[in-house]
Amino acid sequence: MGKVAVIMGSTSDLPVMQGAIDILREFEIEVDVDIVSAHRTPEKLFEFGKTAHKSGYSVIIAGAGGAAHLPGMVASLSPLPVIGVPVKSSNSIDGWDSILSILQMPGGVPVATVALNGAKNAGILAAQIIGSANPAVLKKIEAYKQELKDKVTQGAQEIKKSK
Amino acid sequence: MGKVAVIMGSTSDLPVMQGAIDILREFEIEVDVDIVSAHRTPEKLFEFGKTAHKSGYSVIIAGAGGAAHLPGMVASLSPLPVIGVPVKSSNSIDGWDSILSILQMPGGVPVATVALNGAKNAGILAAQIIGSANPAVLKKIEAYKQELKDKVTQGAQEIKKSK
Amino acid sequence: MGKVAVIMGSTSDLPVMQGAIDILREFEIEVDVDIVSAHRTPEKLFEFGKTAHKSGYSVIIAGAGGAAHLPGMVASLSPLPVIGVPVKSSNSIDGWDSILSILQMPGGVPVATVALNGAKNAGILAAQIIGSANPAVLKKIEAYKQELKDKVTQGAQEIKKSK
Amino acid sequence: MGKVAVIMGSTSDLPVMQGAIDILREFEIEVDVDIVSAHRTPEKLFEFGKTAHKSGYSVIIAGAGGAAHLPGMVASLSPLPVIGVPVKSSNSIDGWDSILSILQMPGGVPVATVALNGAKNAGILAAQIIGSANPAVLKKIEAYKQELKDKVTQGAQEIKKSK
Amino acid sequence: MGKVAVIMGSTSDLPVMQGAIDILREFEIEVDVDIVSAHRTPEKLFEFGKTAHKSGYSVIIAGAGGAAHLPGMVASLSPLPVIGVPVKSSNSIDGWDSILSILQMPGGVPVATVALNGAKNAGILAAQIIGSANPAVLKKIEAYKQELKDKVTQGAQEIKKSK
Amino acid sequence: MGKVAVIMGSTSDLPVMQGAIDILREFEIEVDVDIVSAHRTPEKLFEFGKTAHKSGYSVIIAGAGGAAHLPGMVASLSPLPVIGVPVKSSNSIDGWDSILSILQMPGGVPVATVALNGAKNAGILAAQIIGSANPAVLKKIEAYKQELKDKVTQGAQEIKKSK
Amino acid sequence: MGKVAVIMGSTSDLPVMQGAIDILREFEIEVDVDIVSAHRTPEKLFEFGKTAHKSGYSVIIAGAGGAAHLPGMVASLSPLPVIGVPVKSSNSIDGWDSILSILQMPGGVPVATVALNGAKNAGILAAQIIGSANPAVLKKIEAYKQELKDKVTQGAQEIKKSK
Amino acid sequence: MGKVAVIMGSTSDLPVMQGAIDILREFEIEVDVDIVSAHRTPEKLFEFGKTAHKSGYSVIIAGAGGAAHLPGMVASLSPLPVIGVPVKSSNSIDGWDSILSILQMPGGVPVATVALNGAKNAGILAAQIIGSANPAVLKKIEAYKQELKDKVTQGAQEIKKSK
Repeated sequence: MGKVAVIMGSTSDLPVMQGAIDILREFEIEVDVDIVSAHRTPEKLFEFGKTAHKSGYSVIIAGAGGAAHLPGMVASLSPLPVIGVPVKSSNSIDGWDSILSILQMPGGVPVATVALNGAKNAGILAAQIIGSANPAVLKKIEAYKQELKDKVTQGAQEIKKSK
Repeated sequence: MGKVAVIMGSTSDLPVMQGAIDILREFEIEVDVDIVSAHRTPEKLFEFGKTAHKSGYSVIIAGAGGAAHLPGMVASLSPLPVIGVPVKSSNSIDGWDSILSILQMPGGVPVATVALNGAKNAGILAAQIIGSANPAVLKKIEAYKQELKDKVTQGAQEIKKSK
Repeated sequence: MGKVAVIMGSTSDLPVMQGAIDILREFEIEVDVDIVSAHRTPEKLFEFGKTAHKSGYSVIIAGAGGAAHLPGMVASLSPLPVIGVPVKSSNSIDGWDSILSILQMPGGVPVATVALNGAKNAGILAAQIIGSANPAVLKKIEAYKQELKDKVTQGAQEIKKSK
Repeated sequence: MGKVAVIMGSTSDLPVMQGAIDILREFEIEVDVDIVSAHRTPEKLFEFGKTAHKSGYSVIIAGAGGAAHLPGMVASLSPLPVIGVPVKSSNSIDGWDSILSILQMPGGVPVATVALNGAKNAGILAAQIIGSANPAVLKKIEAYKQELKDKVTQGAQEIKKSK
Repeated sequence: MGKVAVIMGSTSDLPVMQGAIDILREFEIEVDVDIVSAHRTPEKLFEFGKTAHKSGYSVIIAGAGGAAHLPGMVASLSPLPVIGVPVKSSNSIDGWDSILSILQMPGGVPVATVALNGAKNAGILAAQIIGSANPAVLKKIEAYKQELKDKVTQGAQEIKKSK
Repeated sequence: MGKVAVIMGSTSDLPVMQGAIDILREFEIEVDVDIVSAHRTPEKLFEFGKTAHKSGYSVIIAGAGGAAHLPGMVASLSPLPVIGVPVKSSNSIDGWDSILSILQMPGGVPVATVALNGAKNAGILAAQIIGSANPAVLKKIEAYKQELKDKVTQGAQEIKKSK
Repeated sequence: MGKVAVIMGSTSDLPVMQGAIDILREFEIEVDVDIVSAHRTPEKLFEFGKTAHKSGYSVIIAGAGGAAHLPGMVASLSPLPVIGVPVKSSNSIDGWDSILSILQMPGGVPVATVALNGAKNAGILAAQIIGSANPAVLKKIEAYKQELKDKVTQGAQEIKKSK
Repeated sequence: MGKVAVIMGSTSDLPVMQGAIDILREFEIEVDVDIVSAHRTPEKLFEFGKTAHKSGYSVIIAGAGGAAHLPGMVASLSPLPVIGVPVKSSNSIDGWDSILSILQMPGGVPVATVALNGAKNAGILAAQIIGSANPAVLKKIEAYKQELKDKVTQGAQEIKKSK
């Protein structure tokens, strides 16, 4: 089973991106974390993007804010599936710039975009990608979905009692 | 190697969604195509979503326009990775409704969203997902990326000559 | 006189949705409250949507945020009028995603959408729907409108005095 | 069973609003059609709004474009449920002005807003409102929903054959 | 010299609208203030709109938030120039709804729209309108513009010193 | 009775701005037309803005598209009321740039903004401004409003017959 | 005097980018044109960005559409001033994605962004940058501005005659 | 080596614009700071714009908020390159008005626009413009880019340790 690389453009993205790291560890999937700035460390970006599929990774999760070029540039360099997390950073216009910079990739180079600040969902999606070829991980996804359901059901019962 | 299901909310989405079907066939990945309307055939949606992972599919591509609920509802029902294609249908407000309805999924239930009308990229992403656990498909992705590069290089040469 | 079902996607929507519950009780219309998550409890959604018109409900009010699929999916399943309340939840982009996901339903499956966080108005609209066939409730609506007027008139007098 | 009033701000709105008239006649619900301009015939608006509930109407459908004040002003004057149809008229900014002018009503005065140019859905919603207290109309809604399903199923079969 | 009427949809708009009242009093132009809600006191709106030009007013300033119908409806009823102030009220979507509901009036019925929360500018504009036929008021406008200039010049000098 | 100056940033704005010229002539108000480009003829802009109130003008109508600085810069220079017409020119982003560049003036320097391409309404507003101190023009405005009403009434009768 | 490099992401951007090439040749500034795709030829992008300042270029103009990463990535790699041209390509959402992807660069790595499809202005800006240290080019800019003025003056005279 | 002029519309823009001043001083480039309000001190704007290139400036940085006309008007008057900084001032609609008023300049008169509140990047861009003809400044830019890289590398190492 491949590892997941969680990279982000700046240390300031870590509080958001932690959501991906935590859920992947919950699924017992190996995660590596790194800061790779498309605009400030372009050589590292190139090196990372060119070699990720030979370094044991199955999926790359890349988070960035503002004019967020990291996910798309990694997708340009790597044949692996790249999940992009638009981060609502302090220099972002309500997140619209992050979303559009990541989502609107040209034909030929997709980025699997999740919701604004949706790092947790990026982690789940990475697990689903691994699970699509790994029955044990698929089972964990199914169990996770059951958990979600149970929590809602419990909340519903509490509200019904109180109303 | 799993199949890919390409579903869409309406026959009117087919001209856009054909982009996914064509590229997947180019990658020699098996594709099934169906119309599943979240709003008009909800029972079929449920049946499909609940059983897709037992029917030989590895990835689901779902396209829809306007208040596009199909990708998110399938993601709710299936443990497989779901790729959402926002379609700029005639009843859409410049595509914003389709994009936001697909992208902004709540924590726990991701949809891998691609660009507006980006069905071709959805197909490539599905191939990358399969390729992440299948070296033969990964090779095809690498070859495809080389082709993209060659076409740009050729176009660049023609422009340099003419200028 | 039928009851009104007030459902919402998450317990975190309750502070907003309480506005509908309160005004309906003010109109002495029976209300049931439940949590039904389109994405986390899809089976409950189906069961609820398929049976609501046989369970004594005349109107369904459904509130949700982000990629808000609950109102539209209930409208897909039930022949009853469904009122959708876009909730500006924490994961929403200024409410635009909630609004467009609820409003832009395709031909054939309407959702009666009210303003962002407009749960109170959803309750009034439900009362008006019941009142359209029930003269006693219609009278209450007329009295309520008179009250609104009286409050504005009183506020106007106070301002005139102070200026 | 009450009638439905379909009013609009301008004769230029008729091609869009015809969708509501046609579907209501399909449901065998009586419809009256009129031009009532909030901005050019305010007296007629007042007269209409004040008396509609005494003139045999159960529901009012009001369509308008640009700074669309007709639905909200009728809702201000009448205790009946008012359905607003945002029309993408020639003077509209992609429909955003029509949508926001109709949707964002203040607390106390709801308008049941449907999708941009969604007159057909306004007609269906009016039928659902009547149907919520009239089992015969409710049956027609259920039959209509079955028809929608049958059409999608047929379309799906044709696509499956051709692929 | 005519008076200016400053009306608003709700007492909650007063803190913003005070800007118009203050600047008009600074220009020694008579101001009347009132609450006129398009949606909650439609009869008062009609009465006011129909008679304002016979009540000694030269200009009407109308402020409202959300689906802001007050300025446009007064413009519909009165032959006087109407200045609209979009108010960023608590139920507004970043002010876009207020702006578009006031600005995008149909052909035949203009509203002179100022910036979001721009009540002060509405007051100045009303003074300019009166000044366009009244040399004494025009002089005051010119003096006011000189004052603005002097304040900026002074601020510039302080910054130059400190840098 | 003062004249109205209709200025615009480019000859390409004339087809839109003609609406203001025509309606003002219909009201028998004298109009002068000129091209004054804020960005290409800044000296002419200054000369015009500084002297307009001494040249017999009562009101200035200024139309421009894209980053539309003409209305605001004239308002900066002249004590007269300035009406701004956002023009949806070929280089505009759906008109949003024109609208916001004209509407969002800072405190102290108002521009009376009308709808996108709303030159006709700019002309009517100019007439209303003149009419606010000139009973003969006010009468013409009242007659014009009656005409608007008559046309709608006639249209309504035709539709009622045909339905 | 340095040369200007005009690069673009795709041959389909050439019709827009030609505006930059033409105006630079009008100013007799040497121009090189190339296709450099950030997403399809990342190695060429790196090579170009790393060496441009050693290849005789003074300014780089980069045009791209959709999730437009080319200008920002070149700015990341080169110490030269980079001018970005957002192109409204067929896969763009009204140009918003192109604009935000180019404009909203993080602190440390600026891109000098011009208007949507504003390639001509990019060329003029490049000439101004060269002219800021080259009096002969500065003179040409001044002459060009005079020409703009003359054309507007001539257009104004024709309109004045015809009105 | 020329000086850089940093001007802004209001003293309230100084906290944002300080970013440009600081970075330019870090690069040891001479900076002059002034308040020049397009709307309140138009004569000063004219004087400044007409003479800047004769006063020893190589580049002008202009910051403004709301309907931000300062950068464009200076660009209209001066042959020098003008960098525009959209400021998210208190009267701005999330910054959209500032951005569009500065970015969307008509053909012939470019403004080099940077990100919302991107004054620091404006300073760097000014340095790059000077550096494009001055090898010593170019070297400083290269050193600055190296520093950015080193900081990210250091941050990356700390995160790797902690994870």
